[in-house]
Order: sequence, then structure tokens, then C-alpha cells
Amino acid sequence: MTGKVGIVGVGHAKFGKRTDATIRELAHEAVEPALEDAGISVDDIDASVIGVAGDEFAAQGSPAAVIHDYVGMGNKPAFRVEAACATGSAGIRTGWSLIKAGLAEVVLVIGAETMTHVGTPMATELMARAGDTRWEYPFGITFPGFYALMATAHMHEFGTTREQLSMVSVKNHMYGAMNPYAHLQRVVTLEEAMRSVMICYPLNLYDCCLISDGAAAAILANEQRAKKISDTPVWLIGLGAASDAMMISERPTLTGLTATKVAAEKAYRMAGITPDDVDVAVVHDCFTIAEIMAYEDLGFCGKGGGGKFIEEEQSYIGGKVPINVDGGLKSKGHPIGATGVSMTVEITKQLRGEAGKRQVSGAEVGLSHNIGETGQYCFVHVYAR
Amino acid sequence: MTGKVGIVGVGHAKFGKRTDATIRELAHEAVEPALEDAGISVDDIDASVIGVAGDEFAAQGSPAAVIHDYVGMGNKPAFRVEAACATGSAGIRTGWSLIKAGLAEVVLVIGAETMTHVGTPMATELMARAGDTRWEYPFGITFPGFYALMATAHMHEFGTTREQLSMVSVKNHMYGAMNPYAHLQRVVTLEEAMRSVMICYPLNLYDCCLISDGAAAAILANEQRAKKISDTPVWLIGLGAASDAMMISERPTLTGLTATKVAAEKAYRMAGITPDDVDVAVVHDCFTIAEIMAYEDLGFCGKGGGGKFIEEEQSYIGGKVPINVDGGLKSKGHPIGATGVSMTVEITKQLRGEAGKRQVSGAEVGLSHNIGETGQYCFVHVYAR
Repeated sequence: MTGKVGIVGVGHAKFGKRTDATIRELAHEAVEPALEDAGISVDDIDASVIGVAGDEFAAQGSPAAVIHDYVGMGNKPAFRVEAACATGSAGIRTGWSLIKAGLAEVVLVIGAETMTHVGTPMATELMARAGDTRWEYPFGITFPGFYALMATAHMHEFGTTREQLSMVSVKNHMYGAMNPYAHLQRVVTLEEAMRSVMICYPLNLYDCCLISDGAAAAILANEQRAKKISDTPVWLIGLGAASDAMMISERPTLTGLTATKVAAEKAYRMAGITPDDVDVAVVHDCFTIAEIMAYEDLGFCGKGGGGKFIEEEQSYIGGKVPINVDGGLKSKGHPIGATGVSMTVEITKQLRGEAGKRQVSGAEVGLSHNIGETGQYCFVHVYAR
Repeated sequence: MTGKVGIVGVGHAKFGKRTDATIRELAHEAVEPALEDAGISVDDIDASVIGVAGDEFAAQGSPAAVIHDYVGMGNKPAFRVEAACATGSAGIRTGWSLIKAGLAEVVLVIGAETMTHVGTPMATELMARAGDTRWEYPFGITFPGFYALMATAHMHEFGTTREQLSMVSVKNHMYGAMNPYAHLQRVVTLEEAMRSVMICYPLNLYDCCLISDGAAAAILANEQRAKKISDTPVWLIGLGAASDAMMISERPTLTGLTATKVAAEKAYRMAGITPDDVDVAVVHDCFTIAEIMAYEDLGFCGKGGGGKFIEEEQSYIGGKVPINVDGGLKSKGHPIGATGVSMTVEITKQLRGEAGKRQVSGAEVGLSHNIGETGQYCFVHVYAR
């Protein structure tokens, strides 16, 4: 298939502690508004790509099948993609590929996860098993620990401060409070953020993203169909992906992710843009330090300049690049498999000028950045209207 | 990318009870010969697609990352695909798509699973959780039960006999005994097969595939690279995929899989062939009844004629279409994530004339058919040399 691939419909379930819904019901809650947004029916869709990170989280083995069936996809092709916390973005990349490869004209990409039902300790445990189960997990490290190592290295090397980490949290909560789909719609002051309970030094509770239930959906179409379906398609014009070494001990540095740099470079080249062209971005803020490293690795500021970047409010609306103005993983929540698709939903709405109080005015080029584990998976997508 | 996608290298780990190897080591055991077969190094590969069905089977959360890292793929893109027992074929389809979409020129597709370490009762339990965990699994049905329902329906409607079911087993064990990578390399007589312990009427032990550990790898390349890398590329010329209703109770019939019919029709159309053009096929024989239904649903014989087809030895070498001459899931084994890629390995070797004692002479067109669950996922690939 020649031509572009466009996003023609997006939908978002309410993120949060959703004891009222199973994973298939959350998926449905995202798919229905996506179909309505596109103004098409499920009969117009050729295939689904479904992102769910964990069988135990889903309380369902091979969860794509039940979701595909429940949203009414019938006999059409389905399969699941998984890339830990970057699962949803792997789904978008795969949906894009199926269309470009000519195997489908219109693809439904769903990301979904139910996590809260297992409880926070078990959720942390299940995620920790995505660390190397031979060489890392048995020695007790969990994901707050991995990112705490990066944070202390960043503080040591560049003088980044705990205040600066907390400032990321303050920003994301400020915007999350304006997002009706966010898990924790609550403004947080710098003092509150600084004073919260320590999880793993230097990361306290407000440096860590939420454990959430949720789903998001995006409908992708080839250029011809996209133009017929939508008056405002958002085009996926750059796709970059990369991996970091499995074990954090084998990496050249702890102060950044090679995978982000490599994936971003690919995405920028494919889109024919530079970081300066990005009007709005969503980046992977599983921990506040991750957002600071993303500023640098994506090229929005120089290496080591991430702390200053948030301190100067360069990632606020009105700053150099508004970042995570949907609340990010920190405030919007992080139902693992849903996150990447949720990022696509946000950028699509921003580029259509439909982000309400959080709108970045005149945004024409957007970027999403999604990390799995500590960079073992990384996907960067560039969008243009 | 215009042009064809070719298979330029294949590798296979020994299937069996592999207490000597973890999942990453099994993957490596398949990838090394695939690279050697292609005559390239891992540096020549652009991306990996990794199929693993279960986190608990893998004893590793998000297993693609450790496998990708262990086989030396470094910073290149990775993610996992999953479609229950059709996981490996979803991987081949995804690898093909990445190439056709222009995101990669050469892709490494790996399928791997470690199952025996959890023990047979737990393996059956984990697989049962891929049935609908709201409406099926809680009531006690496992996969032998699902396929037993299909078998009794087929016996009732078409007069298929338990002898005919056992004949599938006898054939597959005969060929599996000639396959050095097979789990159970043992010839079985019809009497032995008939007399084995009942698992779920009418399916006895020899009607059920094995629970195995194993891995397989295939290297795919775009037409230009394929012709440079290999003198004997095998082209993937038809790809079909489909799904059946989640709940077996919601299907129009129990005597066949709609998903197989729909996927096969797509694959034949894309390849521009009919079932009569297929020289050699591997089909999903998780239970002997599944192979009999596949004969019919793939169009190798008429509906209800599957029992007669095996009785007349039409699926032996020398018959109408030699089927599962690698031993099938029944004798070769069924490490879930590996199976689909293993099928691609077998057809590639057959079309290159390298299948040794099991060679179908002069085979030019091959087909693989891989089912996830009871048809919720189905992939049919057509290959030509």
C-alpha cells in the first residue's frame, strides 16, 4: 500500500480503580466512542490488534480473543501484541504495518489492562517479573528500584534535585486534574509532592505513576479510506522503535535510555522533522525521572538539562514543548496495555484541536514516546494533521 | 515495499522435555542454525518479532525482551505477539507485515515456549484459562473437553470413527519418528493408539498432542535482500487470518471451524491457488479430530469426508496431500509459541527439498494452518519456491 496511514477515530475509557468492569468491558467502553468518533460501524473494520500486557492482570489467558469477540469483531483476524508498558504503542505500530502491508484497510487497535484487582503489592510483584527472572528479579529489585538507580545517577552526574523530580509530578497532576478520563484528578502542590512517603530513594509516592485499570482505542485507515471516513484525519508520519540491553548492569549509562535516542532518531528521520518541530508530546513518565530523561533523550533539551527544563516550566503549555498535558502516567494512570493507545488518543485530540482546557493552541506536529520495562522496548511515533 | 517476502533461513531447537534449557536458551538453539542457514549474522537483521504464549510458561514476564537480548539483537526493535496456540504464525504474519510496510528489510521471527516445568495438570489448567474465564473456564471445561465436543459432533453427523481418529495419530507418529527434532520419535500401531488411556471421550491419550518445550526461528527478507542472501528463498505468497466466536456454544456448528474456512479462502485468493495446488501441508493437530476437520475446512476433501481421507491414506506421502509429515503437534510436540514457526521451518525445508526421509518429492507449493484456542485465532500461510 502506498500513501499515508491516518487515525480516524479514538476512544478512551475512564482510567481508575474500575471494580465495576472486566477487561472486555473496559475495552468496549473505549471502542464504542472510537467508532462513534469515526462515524463507522465495526463492520467497516478489517482486523483488530489488541495490546494487553499480562494474563494475570487480565484474569484471562490469551485476552485478545475475548476482547475481539466482545467488541463485535466476529470472524475477522485478531492477535495480541505485548511489549510490557509499551504494549499499546507496539499495537499502533503493528496496526500501521498491517495497513501499509496491504493486509487491511481499516484496523482497530485496542489497549487494555486491569491491574487494581490484584492489589498493589502483587501488581508490583507481577511487574518485577518482567525484569530478568534469572539475573535481576531473584535478587529483589522491582521497577521503583530500577528507576531509583537512574535517578540517583542523574542527580549525581547532573545535579538534578528531588525538587525538580517533584516538579514533574506537580505539572502532570495539574493537567491530569483537567482530564475527565484521568485516574487521579487532583492538583498537587510542590510541598505535598515533596513530603509524600518514600518508596525507593529518591523516588517517593508522588514520583511514581499509578496502578490503574483502563482501556483506549484508535481506528487506523489507509489514506484513501481515512479521507473518506474523516474530515480531520491525523497522520502517523514517523515510527521509530528500539531496545536497550536487558540487564541494567550491562548499559553504558544509567542517566538516559539508548533506546529512546535510537527510536527518536528513526522517527524524526522518517517524519522529516527535528525535535524543534514538535508542538506537543506525551512521554513515558512511569517515574518522574523517566520524564526528565525523556526530555533529554528526545532532544527537547541537552543531556543533563532535564531538571532545569521542568524548573523553567519549558514542558508546560506556553513553554518550549508542552509535555504530558493529559496528566501523563503519573496522574492519568498507567493501565499498562492501554497507555500507548491512550497516548495516541491524546495526540490525535490535540492535533484536532479538541483537547479542551488542556489544548495546545495551533498544534500541528505531535509525538508519543512509550517505554517498556526500563527501555527494553521503546516506541516513538510522530503525528501530523 | 513492493515485491515478495521470502524466507531465507530457518532453525529448529529439539522439541521435548527440555529441563536442560530456559526459554532464552531454547530460542538461541533455534536462532543459531537459522543464521547459519541464511549465511548471515545477527547484525544483518533489522528487527525481531517474538512469539511466546504464556508468561507463566516462560517463567519470565514480557519474555520477548530477554530472548531478543540473549540472541544478540542489541538495540534493534522488538516486541511479542501472542495468539494462544497460533502465536508462532501470528509472528510470521507480523514479520511479513513489518517488511511489506517498509519498517524493516530483514526480520527474525522466533517462537518459543517452555511448558513441561509446570507439570501436565498445571499446563492443562493454564491453557484452560485461555477459554472464556467468565463463561467457560469456571464450569470446568479444558481443551481436551472442547475438542471432544467437536469429535462427538463429527462422529454423530458424519459417522467418523474412533479408529479414524487413531489413524491420524498413527500417521503422525510414523513421520515424527523420522524427524530428529520431534519430541516423541516413536512409531505407534493402530492397536496401541486405540487402546491408550481415555482423556475425554472419545479422545484418548494418543488423540492428544504433547506438552513440550521448544523453539523455532525463521528469517524473513524483502525480495531484493532475499535474492542476495539465499539461492533458494521460499516465498510467502498467501496470508489469511480469521477468528471464530469466543464461546463454543455460540457457533453455528461444532463439526468444523469457520475461522479455518475464512482464513484459507483469503490465503488461497491472495496466492492465486486452489487447494488442489497444495503439494504439502502442515495443519493444526492439537487433537486428532482437529486434523480431520482441517482436511475438510481447508478444502482437501468435502465436509464430512475427513475420516475417509485418513483411512484412505490420502494425507500420507503418495496420497492426495501429504499432511504433517514432520510428525505434527501429535508427535513432534506442541510448545505453544514455537509451533507456528516450526510449521514454517518444515514447509521451507520441504520446498527446498531438504526434508530427508520425509521429503515430498517435487513439492512446489506448501501450506501451514495454525489454530489458537478452538479457532479464536487462525492463520493460514501459503508458500512457494
